[in-house]
Amino acid sequence: MLAQAPATTAQTAAVAKAYASPRHEELTKQFEELLSMPNVAADPEGLRKNADYLEAQLKALGAETKLLTAPGLEKYPRVVWGEVKSPGATRTIVFYAHYDGQPVTPSEWDGGKPFAPYLKTVDGEPRVYGRGAGDDKATIMAQLTALKAIRDAHVKLSANLRFIWEGEEENGSEHLEEILKANRELITGDIWLVCDGPVDQSRRQSLAFGARGDAHVQITVYGPSHPLHSGHYGNWAPNPALELVQLLAGMKDANGHVLIPHYYDGIQPLGPVELKALADAPKNDEMLRNELALGHTDGSPRHLLELLNEPSLNINGISAGQTGAHSTNAVPSTAIANLDIRLVVGSEGKLEQQRVVDYVKSQGFFVTSAEPTKAELLGHAKVARIELGGVEPAVRTPMDLPIASEVIAAVKSARGEVVLLPTMGGTVPLDAMERASGTRTITVPIANHDDNQHAANENLRMQNLWDGIETMAALMAMK
Amino acid sequence: MLAQAPATTAQTAAVAKAYASPRHEELTKQFEELLSMPNVAADPEGLRKNADYLEAQLKALGAETKLLTAPGLEKYPRVVWGEVKSPGATRTIVFYAHYDGQPVTPSEWDGGKPFAPYLKTVDGEPRVYGRGAGDDKATIMAQLTALKAIRDAHVKLSANLRFIWEGEEENGSEHLEEILKANRELITGDIWLVCDGPVDQSRRQSLAFGARGDAHVQITVYGPSHPLHSGHYGNWAPNPALELVQLLAGMKDANGHVLIPHYYDGIQPLGPVELKALADAPKNDEMLRNELALGHTDGSPRHLLELLNEPSLNINGISAGQTGAHSTNAVPSTAIANLDIRLVVGSEGKLEQQRVVDYVKSQGFFVTSAEPTKAELLGHAKVARIELGGVEPAVRTPMDLPIASEVIAAVKSARGEVVLLPTMGGTVPLDAMERASGTRTITVPIANHDDNQHAANENLRMQNLWDGIETMAALMAMK
Repeated sequence: MLAQAPATTAQTAAVAKAYASPRHEELTKQFEELLSMPNVAADPEGLRKNADYLEAQLKALGAETKLLTAPGLEKYPRVVWGEVKSPGATRTIVFYAHYDGQPVTPSEWDGGKPFAPYLKTVDGEPRVYGRGAGDDKATIMAQLTALKAIRDAHVKLSANLRFIWEGEEENGSEHLEEILKANRELITGDIWLVCDGPVDQSRRQSLAFGARGDAHVQITVYGPSHPLHSGHYGNWAPNPALELVQLLAGMKDANGHVLIPHYYDGIQPLGPVELKALADAPKNDEMLRNELALGHTDGSPRHLLELLNEPSLNINGISAGQTGAHSTNAVPSTAIANLDIRLVVGSEGKLEQQRVVDYVKSQGFFVTSAEPTKAELLGHAKVARIELGGVEPAVRTPMDLPIASEVIAAVKSARGEVVLLPTMGGTVPLDAMERASGTRTITVPIANHDDNQHAANENLRMQNLWDGIETMAALMAMK
Repeated sequence: MLAQAPATTAQTAAVAKAYASPRHEELTKQFEELLSMPNVAADPEGLRKNADYLEAQLKALGAETKLLTAPGLEKYPRVVWGEVKSPGATRTIVFYAHYDGQPVTPSEWDGGKPFAPYLKTVDGEPRVYGRGAGDDKATIMAQLTALKAIRDAHVKLSANLRFIWEGEEENGSEHLEEILKANRELITGDIWLVCDGPVDQSRRQSLAFGARGDAHVQITVYGPSHPLHSGHYGNWAPNPALELVQLLAGMKDANGHVLIPHYYDGIQPLGPVELKALADAPKNDEMLRNELALGHTDGSPRHLLELLNEPSLNINGISAGQTGAHSTNAVPSTAIANLDIRLVVGSEGKLEQQRVVDYVKSQGFFVTSAEPTKAELLGHAKVARIELGGVEPAVRTPMDLPIASEVIAAVKSARGEVVLLPTMGGTVPLDAMERASGTRTITVPIANHDDNQHAANENLRMQNLWDGIETMAALMAMK
């Protein structure tokens, strides 16, 4: 029966569920095998093994495959590409995911081995721990499994499917756009489904119609040319840590609102469909506040989902001298802070970076982008070196485009009610994808929000994988 | 001749100079031998070897020696004790120094080996590099050499000499007072000459009649229970680094003046003798500012030496998340700062620590001394854990005491003009010494100020050793 007419998205999700349900143990082992392959930027050979493995998996499922690169970029991790053609197809659905993971510090992990995945029960539910579990190998596992289920059941699909699995996402997707452009004919489609990030904290399936962009700023403040004895020189030698904290302190108010002039200028407001989606979305703030042991939240009483539609400014890290048991009685020589600016549509990264630079200048600092010379240090009361990182713009796909409605319907057919978000808080290189492919993006994550992504003990709640397999199957069956 | 009547201090200094001048090479080698013995708290066996070596050196010069400890403290580094008696002596001069050094991070040292001393020419003058070179083995080397010169020339001394060389100074002198008290009859005298710290930045010999005390404070500010993705949660999850910088920023003004209420209360003012000494002391601020590449100095236009007579508050270290190449897109879970309070006579350490605690509370923080519970975190908008370290009080010996005048005269007879300071900026456990011995202290340093003490590449300008030998010889000959 299934072989005769294209299956509906709901039918296909049911096929995937029927395939996966009796195989949880076997699929968990396969997932652990995938997670046992080191996938960090510092280990290009490990990334190459991941790519080869994934290409072989796709090929075994009948896909045409390639490892994509571009002239001159051969030494960088390849994009795993696969295509499954459907006879008579008039549209192409592109599934994006990434197989690389954030850097690891093994000593911070329970057990000390980020690539020795293991099962653990949390709140009565099994999770698998390992780098990449939630971000973003779960999605690849879900796509492979959905495809296997569809193939085993001879489900007839209506669209061609393309898989684009990147290996440099956690390293800034530096070469993604160039690689995509060099392979343009292989990567276009009617919609790019960007399968990355966490679902809503209520554990309901969510769809995001954009992602915040980001831009980084590193500020180094200079004190004495070498660390000084804090007894012999303390309250005479200026302390760069103090100058830095006084500088940073003024950038935001006590409620987390950025005070840098014009920081919120130009934000493109949400339309009525997006505002309604926000109003309908679950408000998880209290649950999250409790889970994270937070006595208050920035921007309160406004909700997290609403606040994600504004640019942010965060101290990712600050350091000067030593702390804790390693602290010494010294006036540090330098103090460093790394700031992370999240962008929304209408807030330009370069402009926001410049506003930070202007703010630092307005606080009496001489600002240089290079290591300051002795003459510069001697000539100015306060000296800061500011290094500006790359910018990833924010992207938003209108929720009322026809293709958007179809994607929403497909996911609902598999999973019931879904949460629709105008934007994700995190950053995905949607802009590069859209520029290279000429295709709109919609983000369909499957991981649990509490997966410790970008940190030690990253994990995936296995139910999210089982649900994700159904979601992916439904999307593959879109007409 | 010298054997018949006690020599003057000037004569004895000349004897020491005559001994050392033709032996610079040999003495440098001996000094390097002393520096090649690891002397850090993390290596008790290394400290034991230092103590044994130094006791043997003293014994070889005719001193009666002991390695002092106290009941129950046998496992801690011993105090090397030595006594040289002079027939008919009516007074005892006690020479304090310490043989332990600050912790080392070999990777920060040029060459990577803090205990492989080597000679290097700086500004045309030889220096020896190695942990302990300036702080404080140079002083021990000077005392041993002066004693050898005196002994070789059969110089007749008027006073008994006692040597007290500590092994826990850089670890807070935690057991010094107890060890001294347990050996009280061996450690009393007419004056304790505390031979530690750097001489004036003009390179003139200085004497300090006190030292600032210190008290430490560690502040940990709490954010989410684990680091969060700064995209998905940034401008909703409070950032503990921001809360910490806003807290610290208000503790001092832009000119380094502490704004914590009552911080400067109770300071015992300097007397006319001390004020005159300060006025007479060289003003090295501009030289130092240039040397250290500082565009301004805190407390300007007041001078360094004047400012050292006030309590200070310094950020020794601050950390949250990661910086530089290791920076990740996260909202850190905690942020830590280590503060160092320097005390002057009249400012009480416990009181100053409490003022810091009160200040933190006044800024809206719930303050706890232990790891906060989840209920405490949930119940308060801002939570800080404050851990208070031990307190070392400040000490000042009046400059116009008779014994003070005699010490000044002895040093002048050897070295010409000297710089007299009411206090050193750094901290020495003078209070413990005075309490245990019932004896006043005067600090007679010999190291160069630019010796990188408490940092990598610690060094001694060899001329400071040659000068120090004369200074020590003169002091040994005090009537």
